[in-house]
Amino acid sequence: MNIIDNLKWRYAVKKFDTNKELSEAQIQVLKEAFNLTATSYGLQPLKLVVIKNKAIQEKLVSVSWNQPQILQASHLLVICIQDNYTTKEVASYFNLVQKVRKTPDEIINPFKKFLTAEIAKKTQEELFISNKNQAYIALGNLMTVCASQEIDACPMEGFIPEKYDEILDLKKHNLKSVLVMPVGFRAEDDYMKALIKVRKELSESIIEIN
Amino acid sequence: MNIIDNLKWRYAVKKFDTNKELSEAQIQVLKEAFNLTATSYGLQPLKLVVIKNKAIQEKLVSVSWNQPQILQASHLLVICIQDNYTTKEVASYFNLVQKVRKTPDEIINPFKKFLTAEIAKKTQEELFISNKNQAYIALGNLMTVCASQEIDACPMEGFIPEKYDEILDLKKHNLKSVLVMPVGFRAEDDYMKALIKVRKELSESIIEIN
Repeated sequence: MNIIDNLKWRYAVKKFDTNKELSEAQIQVLKEAFNLTATSYGLQPLKLVVIKNKAIQEKLVSVSWNQPQILQASHLLVICIQDNYTTKEVASYFNLVQKVRKTPDEIINPFKKFLTAEIAKKTQEELFISNKNQAYIALGNLMTVCASQEIDACPMEGFIPEKYDEILDLKKHNLKSVLVMPVGFRAEDDYMKALIKVRKELSESIIEIN
Repeated sequence: MNIIDNLKWRYAVKKFDTNKELSEAQIQVLKEAFNLTATSYGLQPLKLVVIKNKAIQEKLVSVSWNQPQILQASHLLVICIQDNYTTKEVASYFNLVQKVRKTPDEIINPFKKFLTAEIAKKTQEELFISNKNQAYIALGNLMTVCASQEIDACPMEGFIPEKYDEILDLKKHNLKSVLVMPVGFRAEDDYMKALIKVRKELSESIIEIN
């Protein structure tokens, strides 16, 4: 399949096949793809929680609008953002840049100063919104990567983040859950499987300026 | 290349090759991929402006932190969200569902009622934030699709949306610009080309719960 066929093939799975599991190699692709997500200034204010534990998945169903995919899925992915975001993260980022690229201080420092000031002047609420935006980039990336690998998924905003944070003990990692995506394989009898994809006409979605 | 190699290959291009243009077929892939982006409830509150006009691209440089890629790029993509978002959009969506899937009223109506109420109870600011999140999904999708096609891109939040809206006359389409992405081909002498990609260790980005 080409990438467009992949994107047409995917849909938000309503029923997963509980007899099929993703292989370690498939999960590894998703982890690496997540970590390669482009983020604002490269700061990566994100973490991915990968859950493969039926007892925990079952606990999460009732705080996910009772969506059964949470339990059925081979693995449950939870995209989180860092809470209490500070300029320490900027310092860590530049340490990493220097470690990886051996960039000299005189090149790093002006940009480090600029970015530290950028983060420092934002409120925690502004940083939360901005970091949450980055989580949606990761979701978009992961959905397309899943489609390219013929891995099924169901992206979800419909859950109670505070309950996820509590059940998964995310506070100890200084994290907040923002998006959820069960992954695995569509069930043969998922009623959504046979439905035609609904999308606007291309002419309605695109404006060309030549 | 496999998808991980594709994602490693991509980077935010700082200098595009001004002698190379994307083909019509390549632009068509990006348009279709954009329209296939998954969005909350399938509502697609997004539009993509595809600009291939050097005079307009030049005008946009100064309201894009003077980033030269805006002018250099083969095409400039601007991801927009609908302004003044109302329940009319929900009605249009269900009209489309009925047209495409011939779903009977008795199945459509309860969900239509629920979703109409969901949108009606939100403020314009809440809808703006929520629709903007969807634009980031589109960005994540488009970046990965570009990478899969070896199309270069540079995702940007650094521009003045109000100025874009004015220069591109987006108000008449009831749109607001939220993200910008020049696309084309990296220049041979882009200094970023040779730099090692900086990403956290996988063990730092992923938490496993088994």
